[in-house]
Amino acid sequence: MRVYLDNNATTIVDPIVFEEMVPYFCQMYGNPNSLHEFGSETHPALRCAMDRLYAGVGANDDDDIVVTSCATESINWVLKGVYFDFIRNGDKNHIITSEVEHPAVIAACKFLETLGVDVTYLPVNNDGVIELDTLEQSITDKTALVSIMWANNETGMVFPIEEIGQICKKHDVLFHTDATQAIGKVPVDVEKAGVDYMSFSAHKFHGPKGVGGLYIKEGKVITSLLHGGEHMGGLRSGTLNVAGIVGMGKAMELAVENLDFEKSNVKRLRNRLEDALLKLSGTFVVGTKEQRTPNTILISVKGIEGEAMLWDLNKAGIAASTGSACASETLESNPVMEAIGAEADLAHTALRLSLSRFTTDEEIDYTIETIQNAVLRLRAISSTYAYAPDWHESKL
Amino acid sequence: MRVYLDNNATTIVDPIVFEEMVPYFCQMYGNPNSLHEFGSETHPALRCAMDRLYAGVGANDDDDIVVTSCATESINWVLKGVYFDFIRNGDKNHIITSEVEHPAVIAACKFLETLGVDVTYLPVNNDGVIELDTLEQSITDKTALVSIMWANNETGMVFPIEEIGQICKKHDVLFHTDATQAIGKVPVDVEKAGVDYMSFSAHKFHGPKGVGGLYIKEGKVITSLLHGGEHMGGLRSGTLNVAGIVGMGKAMELAVENLDFEKSNVKRLRNRLEDALLKLSGTFVVGTKEQRTPNTILISVKGIEGEAMLWDLNKAGIAASTGSACASETLESNPVMEAIGAEADLAHTALRLSLSRFTTDEEIDYTIETIQNAVLRLRAISSTYAYAPDWHESKL
Repeated sequence: MRVYLDNNATTIVDPIVFEEMVPYFCQMYGNPNSLHEFGSETHPALRCAMDRLYAGVGANDDDDIVVTSCATESINWVLKGVYFDFIRNGDKNHIITSEVEHPAVIAACKFLETLGVDVTYLPVNNDGVIELDTLEQSITDKTALVSIMWANNETGMVFPIEEIGQICKKHDVLFHTDATQAIGKVPVDVEKAGVDYMSFSAHKFHGPKGVGGLYIKEGKVITSLLHGGEHMGGLRSGTLNVAGIVGMGKAMELAVENLDFEKSNVKRLRNRLEDALLKLSGTFVVGTKEQRTPNTILISVKGIEGEAMLWDLNKAGIAASTGSACASETLESNPVMEAIGAEADLAHTALRLSLSRFTTDEEIDYTIETIQNAVLRLRAISSTYAYAPDWHESKL
Repeated sequence: MRVYLDNNATTIVDPIVFEEMVPYFCQMYGNPNSLHEFGSETHPALRCAMDRLYAGVGANDDDDIVVTSCATESINWVLKGVYFDFIRNGDKNHIITSEVEHPAVIAACKFLETLGVDVTYLPVNNDGVIELDTLEQSITDKTALVSIMWANNETGMVFPIEEIGQICKKHDVLFHTDATQAIGKVPVDVEKAGVDYMSFSAHKFHGPKGVGGLYIKEGKVITSLLHGGEHMGGLRSGTLNVAGIVGMGKAMELAVENLDFEKSNVKRLRNRLEDALLKLSGTFVVGTKEQRTPNTILISVKGIEGEAMLWDLNKAGIAASTGSACASETLESNPVMEAIGAEADLAHTALRLSLSRFTTDEEIDYTIETIQNAVLRLRAISSTYAYAPDWHESKL
């Protein structure tokens, strides 16, 4: 049996999505910017896809949704655009983000620091979420932007986006949210949330890889990251990835349609898996079930290195993760676990299981059984578990 | 009959390319950076694709080829990376490019000018090519980068890349070339050409849209445009677009394999079309056949607005262009025509016909006949042609 429980890293392209994409490779392959039928025949599908994106996130016609190549591009665009418009060519000098953002935000902020930008990385509480008071106290008259994720990629914890939006509005500070892990998992409404910019990636909600988007609130256009032709209203140059846009549009429509299913069935399966694993001694999960996206578990299994667990699961055909795939190759400890206060040894025990609407009951049964066996096997050979049965309780 | 003669705008995805991409949407959909089989099972295809890219452009193992979302991204990366590394944080302040570069280069340079960078836009001669003497005289001890395209998107004129590379090396100046219109049309060898950076886009050589690349010579790594996770050796973040990379790799292999066919058959068809059109009075083509990519004709048809001609051709099912699709929506005169010295009225008569290896003899016959009829019809109603039969000769 093969079981894919790494949906926060990437997802299967929904076959319905792929089917809509197919005609735009070898049949309707024209450049949409061309003045002939090979170009214009792509327009209805593109318009339909854009409509689905606008509807999916609650944008209105005067806002912009700009197609990019991924959330990483969107994030870099916002951070660097704000730098050029409000810091280099303005009187601001400060950006606020959190310690648990995706590497794209952290690395772009580190880069901006080399240009003289002052960046505050807000700490998170034991649940892995920032405190609103701490955020508000960090804002100064030099603050140009707050960039806080909608939902965390590792814990699944949903951040208080509406409240953050209100604080930003009150202090007249721009607000960007990385909604990569939120779309398709929880309702996302840019209007209600009061965001100025929102980044997302199609491949996290059963769309294709290589295409994403940036929502820009009306009147909040910033300096482009990709200068060039007149594509996307001059905001993002580069020949339109027609198949990718069509795929992302359909994926967005299905993501929204399946929100109830996510909240009922995916959550039910996630809870079943979580409850079974928590029956094992020496385990804990970050954050309450209700505060998390319905598909995610970040669990610590005392005495077992996350990589050792992944190895056992992988041998059994189960795909999981120790944390973000974007940082997985370094074999470092889970940075979110570290941020919430777990020491390095404990952070090394993190295991992330992320489900999708394609996950089945049979797969969950098999996964529970496999993890139970892996825990027995790995603890029997663990160098830390045998000697320190109370090890994890003493660390948090 | 439908005839696609706008291959410099974009190309059909070769069905063989598409076939190789298909498994990476709904079957092997893992994130290559993941530590499990769903991730690692994509590695052989990715390695194969990268090998094809390295072989296709003659890169060696110590060079980098970094996958991006398109040539526009690659171009923005080089220009802004050079800005950060050698201008903002160095003692250089000058970039040299040409007046006939793609809008991505021109717009990125215009942006850099707002940051205080000094940019020289080299003029072109009547053939639409820069003069080597002018280039060499423009280089100063403040010059950080020369960015000159390998082949022009509108005229098809191939630039003297090897000689430009030698001049850059002699003066210790970095050399970037936009090879978007060269790959698959003429042999491209980065080593022989002496380039430090080379941008390209898969969709110009029968690969998918939304994926491109940047070649970076060994030791010439520059500041990233997309900061984030560890993808592409830390040089370009964002989850790998597996299907896109696989497609670009196969497209590159086929492009190189078909170079002889391009040089023989595509060129033969192009020449047949060109010779027939030049038999019409009051026509001229920019550049000699031998200096051009084998697939391109930029022709001026006296007294006929390019857009009027496009309209007639489009009605007959033939796709052509008045110039770059990236600037086509403004209905401005052809900028390359203007750069080579044609006045605006004449530049408005530009018609670009660009073939591919999928173009057939029957399509060329039909196109010749259609254009002949269109010229008769449109000249009969032209407000300029009747009154000024010698109009075009007086303008050049």
